Amino acid sequence: LKKKVAISIGDPNGVGLQLILENHTKVCEVCDPIYFVNQNILQQAATLLNIHIPNNINLFETIGEFEIKPGEVCKDAGLYSYNSFLDAINYVKENKADAITTLPINKESWSKANIHYVGHTDMLRDVFQEDAIMMLGCEKMYVSLFTEHMPLSKVTSSLSLEKLEKFLLDLKKSLPNVNEKIAVLGLNPHAGDNGVLGNEEEIIIQAILNANKKLGKQIFEGPLVPDIAFTPRVRSQYKYFVAMYHDQGLAPLKALYFDEGINVSLNLPILRTSVDHGTAFDIAYKNINQLSNLSYLNAINYCI
Amino acid sequence: LKKKVAISIGDPNGVGLQLILENHTKVCEVCDPIYFVNQNILQQAATLLNIHIPNNINLFETIGEFEIKPGEVCKDAGLYSYNSFLDAINYVKENKADAITTLPINKESWSKANIHYVGHTDMLRDVFQEDAIMMLGCEKMYVSLFTEHMPLSKVTSSLSLEKLEKFLLDLKKSLPNVNEKIAVLGLNPHAGDNGVLGNEEEIIIQAILNANKKLGKQIFEGPLVPDIAFTPRVRSQYKYFVAMYHDQGLAPLKALYFDEGINVSLNLPILRTSVDHGTAFDIAYKNINQLSNLSYLNAINYCI
Repeated sequence: LKKKVAISIGDPNGVGLQLILENHTKVCEVCDPIYFVNQNILQQAATLLNIHIPNNINLFETIGEFEIKPGEVCKDAGLYSYNSFLDAINYVKENKADAITTLPINKESWSKANIHYVGHTDMLRDVFQEDAIMMLGCEKMYVSLFTEHMPLSKVTSSLSLEKLEKFLLDLKKSLPNVNEKIAVLGLNPHAGDNGVLGNEEEIIIQAILNANKKLGKQIFEGPLVPDIAFTPRVRSQYKYFVAMYHDQGLAPLKALYFDEGINVSLNLPILRTSVDHGTAFDIAYKNINQLSNLSYLNAINYCI
Repeated sequence: LKKKVAISIGDPNGVGLQLILENHTKVCEVCDPIYFVNQNILQQAATLLNIHIPNNINLFETIGEFEIKPGEVCKDAGLYSYNSFLDAINYVKENKADAITTLPINKESWSKANIHYVGHTDMLRDVFQEDAIMMLGCEKMYVSLFTEHMPLSKVTSSLSLEKLEKFLLDLKKSLPNVNEKIAVLGLNPHAGDNGVLGNEEEIIIQAILNANKKLGKQIFEGPLVPDIAFTPRVRSQYKYFVAMYHDQGLAPLKALYFDEGINVSLNLPILRTSVDHGTAFDIAYKNINQLSNLSYLNAINYCI
């Protein structure tokens, strides 16, 4: 039996519905998808895109009625993408599907609809009241983020032994099938260079020691020198990396594997994966045949 | 007439002398090199490496007498690499050569010899009393660093309008032949996301405006979202990038172009380039035929 994947459509004014319609056949090869969109909205998109709606499509008819406005920031579309995601969450919570794959929402549209989450992960944290872990990457390399969406000035003070140790243990618990070493990056240039460029690496060393001790295994290694961690030689040694902050991990990841990347929410009662691109308003409904689908298909494949 | 390049040998216990001996013929094809090492030290290396010293080699006999100890941190070697660099600087200052290319020194060995510079660039700053700019990269992409070797916790408070504006103007002055746009990165994740994730981007925007106004030209663009700045699409638009801090620029650069990278010191009365790797003590004098020479040859080529 194929796994069932709940797919929230993201912002209807963006590229989500085109990705769904163009890739339905491929998606059906690996899972049994259910899309969180009603017939009317889907038909509007199909008409705009001049693509037939496949016969075998399975919909959860998320309520909402409005006109799709290609590429526009819009309250109605924002609210609808929120409801599509919320319906998908509840569906998976009730064990009617195995995992969620989300298509991109527009944060400004959410804001216009008075939804004040920074994004999907933030909403999941609130719904489940758990410390979700954000992991991005692809088959070749995954980066999980110890801190995420915060000003750079707050990063250093957010690092504590207790928090990092918990993060490492939560991460390992969320990756039960991963038995290889996981690389933990330093915080400072040259990983502090023995304290000359910062001493927060002492906290990182201790957190690694504590986590490994509790796991009874040398799972975590580090702290790695951040600007060396993603060179070819080091990448050949590790597939999983822990970055201390957003751009430390994501700038190298996206430099290397932009098109293929996905976003995985770990440490939650449900599994959620996502494409690692935005709504692409600039190309939505613009008669582009076959959007790049690597990220979308990888996101679904991770669920399987 | 070929340009004359002064080559300081770096730490004699590291891979510098092997690179010099193995690549002398190639180097002579593009420039007229002079190596800052005396006959005795060079002969020791040649014997250890079992490589003949080329007949046409031109030496500036930096004073010093000691035994090469492959791969060891050592006071004598540290002092010698310092003197080799100092002689090269003076030589270029006296207009006897056009530029310096440096081979890697060992910071611990410098420290043992009571030389307290963090590295070559730091020493150049002191010698010339100028705000040297560190730029790293290769033909495909160069990254200059607004802040360099400092703890991450100090980065945000180091950013000021006055300093960044001066940095941008100094950088442009140092790259007189560059007429293309130069990308300036934001400081915060998502370049602050309109202030939600930090507001230092306002300073960056103003610095770019001021610099462009003084230059009478739209040279600088930004602030770019840091984790998008090095994706293939953006790299196709820019060759020169300004990073706000060390790992923001160097982690993506080294992920992409580790072997080819060089380090250039700009905004000084002399031009200095360097390989972008260390002394490689682990492989020094270990019978490895033909070390990777891409970075060394690129460093010399940049001088031409």
